[in-house]
Amino acid sequence: MTATLPTDVQHALAAIGGRSFSHLFLVACGGSFAVMMAGKYFADRHSPSLPCDIYNGDEFVCRDPVRLGPGTLVVLCSQTGTTAETVRAARHARERGATTIGMTMAADSPLAASVDHVLGYQAAYTTGRPIDSAYSNYGILYMLLAGLFDQRERSALSPDLLVSLGRLQPAIDRAHETFAERFATYAPRFAPRETIYTLSSGASYGAAYSYAICVLMEMQWYGSQAIHADEFFHGPFEVVDEDAAFIVMIGLDETRRLTERARDFLFRFGDRDNMLVLDAAELDLDGMVEEMKPYLVPLILFDTLWRFAYRLAELRDQPMLEGRRYMKKLTDY
Amino acid sequence: MTATLPTDVQHALAAIGGRSFSHLFLVACGGSFAVMMAGKYFADRHSPSLPCDIYNGDEFVCRDPVRLGPGTLVVLCSQTGTTAETVRAARHARERGATTIGMTMAADSPLAASVDHVLGYQAAYTTGRPIDSAYSNYGILYMLLAGLFDQRERSALSPDLLVSLGRLQPAIDRAHETFAERFATYAPRFAPRETIYTLSSGASYGAAYSYAICVLMEMQWYGSQAIHADEFFHGPFEVVDEDAAFIVMIGLDETRRLTERARDFLFRFGDRDNMLVLDAAELDLDGMVEEMKPYLVPLILFDTLWRFAYRLAELRDQPMLEGRRYMKKLTDY
Repeated sequence: MTATLPTDVQHALAAIGGRSFSHLFLVACGGSFAVMMAGKYFADRHSPSLPCDIYNGDEFVCRDPVRLGPGTLVVLCSQTGTTAETVRAARHARERGATTIGMTMAADSPLAASVDHVLGYQAAYTTGRPIDSAYSNYGILYMLLAGLFDQRERSALSPDLLVSLGRLQPAIDRAHETFAERFATYAPRFAPRETIYTLSSGASYGAAYSYAICVLMEMQWYGSQAIHADEFFHGPFEVVDEDAAFIVMIGLDETRRLTERARDFLFRFGDRDNMLVLDAAELDLDGMVEEMKPYLVPLILFDTLWRFAYRLAELRDQPMLEGRRYMKKLTDY
Repeated sequence: MTATLPTDVQHALAAIGGRSFSHLFLVACGGSFAVMMAGKYFADRHSPSLPCDIYNGDEFVCRDPVRLGPGTLVVLCSQTGTTAETVRAARHARERGATTIGMTMAADSPLAASVDHVLGYQAAYTTGRPIDSAYSNYGILYMLLAGLFDQRERSALSPDLLVSLGRLQPAIDRAHETFAERFATYAPRFAPRETIYTLSSGASYGAAYSYAICVLMEMQWYGSQAIHADEFFHGPFEVVDEDAAFIVMIGLDETRRLTERARDFLFRFGDRDNMLVLDAAELDLDGMVEEMKPYLVPLILFDTLWRFAYRLAELRDQPMLEGRRYMKKLTDY
């Protein structure tokens, strides 16, 4: 029932054990960048000694933060291992003398060839086969960070994390059932729209970001934005009227009240029928350690929302992956 | 011609001089948060010894990064000094033992009362009177950071910065002329739309963010998102068609090629008539020191784009500030 630390994660942790890194950089693009946002939250909550920054691949290369150099650790992620900007970022980090760890599904990819340590992970998205989400991008990133922080901070995050990751896949499977009826109700309302916003905060903000840019915009050509629940009140809330449509992801982390506040506003000035709210409090997270739940919530909500996306795709008669007009179709941009 | 370091900035720098802070936090909401994004870029480029994070007010309070504590410096900003989340963040930082600096226009505001050092600044937005942008939120933040880094890193940023800030207001005035005709051409095209995206990278990303959420969404109720130029290619670019409208802000910093790449894509697959491009290379930045130009570009582009917003407001028959339905009209949210 408890997840096992994969051999490659063990090896990477052994190799970096005892190194006193001065900075941690989490670097990726798009959906993988969104996973790094959750990693940053985890780092902010658990590592007093290791400052952490996240950047997308090309911003990292060009901005070239002056703190990057020998004695820093750079963790990168690309599903296929071919994302040009992320591969470039890995090479840039190595040139600067940093230690590099690359997460990818493809052990023979350019990213894998450009880093010191390669960590594999599973994704249903790419293979179409059922997976155990304990070993997904989120899961592997958390395993690495928990191991790293346990070494540095004398914390004991890893055992609780592995127990909780062991309960993740069943929790996701149950979540599909929990939200199925809601998705069936909301899909016909959302399908014909031009614009759907997502909204969240804290550990779950990345999931909202990924859903907005990689699912709604990329695969279904909706207008969108992932609105941070606090920033919502400093501009974006002015677009709310009876016709505005939002997907709200309420997590279990310390920022929960931010998203609850935004949800209350949306219910008050918008139409509830246009507000698809997924509250992690509705989930059955049986067997997970309380402190780890907030970090696993974004995986569950995001995974579940794929089902909603497929419903939209059907109603809009626009296939998900195959419906893209530029990505994976053009090569010269 | 050279800008002068205001007395309050001098006092704050003298008070923190010699302190070896372990972390710098830049905290604000909405438009002020966007200014912090430029501050983060400046810190990343110039301070090897001081890690820096930016958060909006409530995310900072709830996330409560474990690195926050005595020996850390927290810089906050709120125009009116009344932004509840930012005031709360200042109090939270003090409770954690951090040194706090508050930037605000109101010396008698709750924010001013909640910080160790208060820095005043000027804003045309609030007073309606002409100002010298050297002493705007951006200008004061850069003065503070340059002074701080000069103390820590033995750099000499401040003299170059002050010379360049001294040339800022005339550069802004010239920029208005440079772009006036373009704004007149694009306003009737953009006014009737539902959605306008902004796009930028690096030091200018914050200006694109602020324009999307505080101007287009808040004051004119457009659908919008500030798309990062690299992230654009990992999802958002799929919404581009002949009808998509973008405002592209091309800066002079190290990330310039990212936004150029996105502009080229937009010209190729969109309609040029729907792409309002402001390229900082078109600006006359006479007298500024080369290295400082990239940091002052976002102020110039953002200030200039206000003129465009007023043109849109007129054509849409929706006044700018008075047109808001919730902000400054409701108090109970």
